[in-house]
Amino acid sequence: MIADMDSLKVGLVGLGNVGCGTLQILIENKEQLAHKLGIPVEVAMLCSRSVHSRKLPAGAESIAKTTDWRDVVSNPEVDVVAELVGGTGAASDVIEAALANGKAVVTANKELMAKRGVELWQKASEAGRPLAMEASVAGGIPIHTVLREGIVGDRIEAMAGILNGTCNFILTEMEKAGRGFDEVLAEAQKLGYAEADPSADVDGYDARSKLAILAALAFGCRVPVEDIYVEGIRRVSDVDFSYAAQLRHTIRLLCVARLSSEGLALSVRPTLLPKSAILASVSGSYNAIWVKGAYGSDSFYYGRGAGPLPTGVAVVSDIIHAGRELLSCRQNRVSPYSFRQLSAYRPAPPESFKQPYYLRFRVENRFGIIADLATILRDHGIGIDAVGQLPISNWRDLPFVITVEAATHGQVQGAVETMSRLEYLIEPPLVMPMLAEF
Amino acid sequence: MIADMDSLKVGLVGLGNVGCGTLQILIENKEQLAHKLGIPVEVAMLCSRSVHSRKLPAGAESIAKTTDWRDVVSNPEVDVVAELVGGTGAASDVIEAALANGKAVVTANKELMAKRGVELWQKASEAGRPLAMEASVAGGIPIHTVLREGIVGDRIEAMAGILNGTCNFILTEMEKAGRGFDEVLAEAQKLGYAEADPSADVDGYDARSKLAILAALAFGCRVPVEDIYVEGIRRVSDVDFSYAAQLRHTIRLLCVARLSSEGLALSVRPTLLPKSAILASVSGSYNAIWVKGAYGSDSFYYGRGAGPLPTGVAVVSDIIHAGRELLSCRQNRVSPYSFRQLSAYRPAPPESFKQPYYLRFRVENRFGIIADLATILRDHGIGIDAVGQLPISNWRDLPFVITVEAATHGQVQGAVETMSRLEYLIEPPLVMPMLAEF
Repeated sequence: MIADMDSLKVGLVGLGNVGCGTLQILIENKEQLAHKLGIPVEVAMLCSRSVHSRKLPAGAESIAKTTDWRDVVSNPEVDVVAELVGGTGAASDVIEAALANGKAVVTANKELMAKRGVELWQKASEAGRPLAMEASVAGGIPIHTVLREGIVGDRIEAMAGILNGTCNFILTEMEKAGRGFDEVLAEAQKLGYAEADPSADVDGYDARSKLAILAALAFGCRVPVEDIYVEGIRRVSDVDFSYAAQLRHTIRLLCVARLSSEGLALSVRPTLLPKSAILASVSGSYNAIWVKGAYGSDSFYYGRGAGPLPTGVAVVSDIIHAGRELLSCRQNRVSPYSFRQLSAYRPAPPESFKQPYYLRFRVENRFGIIADLATILRDHGIGIDAVGQLPISNWRDLPFVITVEAATHGQVQGAVETMSRLEYLIEPPLVMPMLAEF
Repeated sequence: MIADMDSLKVGLVGLGNVGCGTLQILIENKEQLAHKLGIPVEVAMLCSRSVHSRKLPAGAESIAKTTDWRDVVSNPEVDVVAELVGGTGAASDVIEAALANGKAVVTANKELMAKRGVELWQKASEAGRPLAMEASVAGGIPIHTVLREGIVGDRIEAMAGILNGTCNFILTEMEKAGRGFDEVLAEAQKLGYAEADPSADVDGYDARSKLAILAALAFGCRVPVEDIYVEGIRRVSDVDFSYAAQLRHTIRLLCVARLSSEGLALSVRPTLLPKSAILASVSGSYNAIWVKGAYGSDSFYYGRGAGPLPTGVAVVSDIIHAGRELLSCRQNRVSPYSFRQLSAYRPAPPESFKQPYYLRFRVENRFGIIADLATILRDHGIGIDAVGQLPISNWRDLPFVITVEAATHGQVQGAVETMSRLEYLIEPPLVMPMLAEF
């Protein structure tokens, strides 16, 4: 289409952490990028509201700057617009206007792509321009490229991911230091690892958006974000790590997708993982994704979840990808999903899938508790696997654990509802699935 | 180029394990592949010397068959030729003839691509046809796509890989069961995990070819395979695993690439890995690659190293990739390497890199041995880190270990040569580097 272009010109909109990381890589790694693409990659224009006041990486002095994104998307020099604004407001306008003006678009915007990705891809397709979004999920792991190209020949059956670095940092710290959630969260906030309002992270919404994008990539279906079951990590306590350790497990906020003949089951929730599982080795702010294919068996991808430079690598790699597409006169753009057309989401019926669960109780101790709980479980058709109790330090607030054999979400919810009416329970039971082999 | 084609037609040459795995996936996964590429993928012709007698996957009955590869490469119906013959003889002719006839080519041939990849890519480029080789290294891990596309924006600084499943299986079994190399090799041969002539695997040559391909992908330079330092696993014994465990390490055949301002250092050799390193968790016939980028920090890729279906996924994914390129009228084909042009290999001088080493001795015990060895190490400028000895069972064949501080390969070789002249040594010391952080 622009087969005779002699350099690829990039406009960056948004100069927050990811924007500055991207800019730094485009400047510092210029020589190697030219070797890789075949022509130089140049930054033609920078845009942010504070572009004239903020400190930019060395080498950015001579680049044209604006505070109005319209200057970038209408700049005839610009071939590729990188939307690094974030959110679902202006970002959406930037992308649409850029495509309408014939620009290729690269975005790091997980929230927008989870909500409107299919629609934006449709617009890109009509405009005949590439749209890439590697940076939107797990910045330091090229999972989009893996699913879209690397293992596109496979048929994905299941996926499990640790996709929120803040939660993984908090859980890892709780485990290492035997400290409580609130204490570790406060520290993470002080260190800048968690936001002042931590809800998007600790309540699982960020991970849920990422799972929606990965599900579209892997299974080719458009998943309404709100339809995904989500549960955050606020209720996980230090005592749960003690019990998990007894069971040779650890606890992670796990995004899970499982495809069966009945449909696709998606969930985000704290989950017990056997310590022997490779996912259990993912600590701190790292992300990881485990993929199970019908033919390729299991593979595993691990790297930084975020950070200006790792996410910048994803943006720059997408810019090279877009450049290669522009350099061809490709009629059939590669979809940012593995599939060219996404189909509707067919959720698996909740009763179609069973897994073992961990139930943690806090009770005022009295006679006959186990009998009560065992009866309720039996009445819901749930078999007990084990009952565990650490040395008792407080008879008035006594934690203990029951692990149960594979049951459906509905069975467990039913039992837990009944249990919640028992007056000696200090709080409703904490329920976490235990990951078995897929 | 063939923008109006209404199906992608594949010719398979070679129907060994990988050929049959590829064929099975193309048949069974047909529906999803069509959704992913946008047009159906059909197998137009099969070729192998035993094609008429051997058992083929269900659904292959109606496909045209031949025993002469020339029928495939000259078949006007065929768009993509998959070369799955292996070796550097006929395979080379198949690829060249296919390209000359305007076919896209996909290959699983590690030996050929390590030796003649650059030259064949040149021919593909001149013919304006895609050439892809994902299956040539670590079948179940899409590491080519990752380096060529996923993290192409980064500048790779170092890489470490476990790339030979047979060696990893043998080492893992030795570790688990405390058994000797010969015993485990014999069993692996009986189980079909190792060849009757195991040299290509256990002497490190297979891993070396793979490292040459990965180095070309990651660093953009053509590496003569023979220039890579290689050492196999034959001398690793059960006692080494005992000592490694004492040091909280394990032993793996590790392919390492490190780029410095002085050049590129490449080696294949048994190496001690800290048990805490994610690479140490790679057991059995799995492969894994750890990558360190200047910007993206570290990432890690793990999956099956071989097997008809995992390798078949790589071949089929490449077929989809080739199909996407053919569907465009792309003038600038994506190089199978990250870089469009490979440069010459500039080996780092051996004295430019230091690392700690593990030296294992077998001696007839007598007075003053440690003093002798310590003096020789000191004379070569090597500092001792620790001396370790397991409970002694045989004074006439006594194993013990000295770990030394970071030293160059040359220093250690010099010391070992001098030591080998000591008459109480039963065999020359076994030398293995200990992987420190890159």
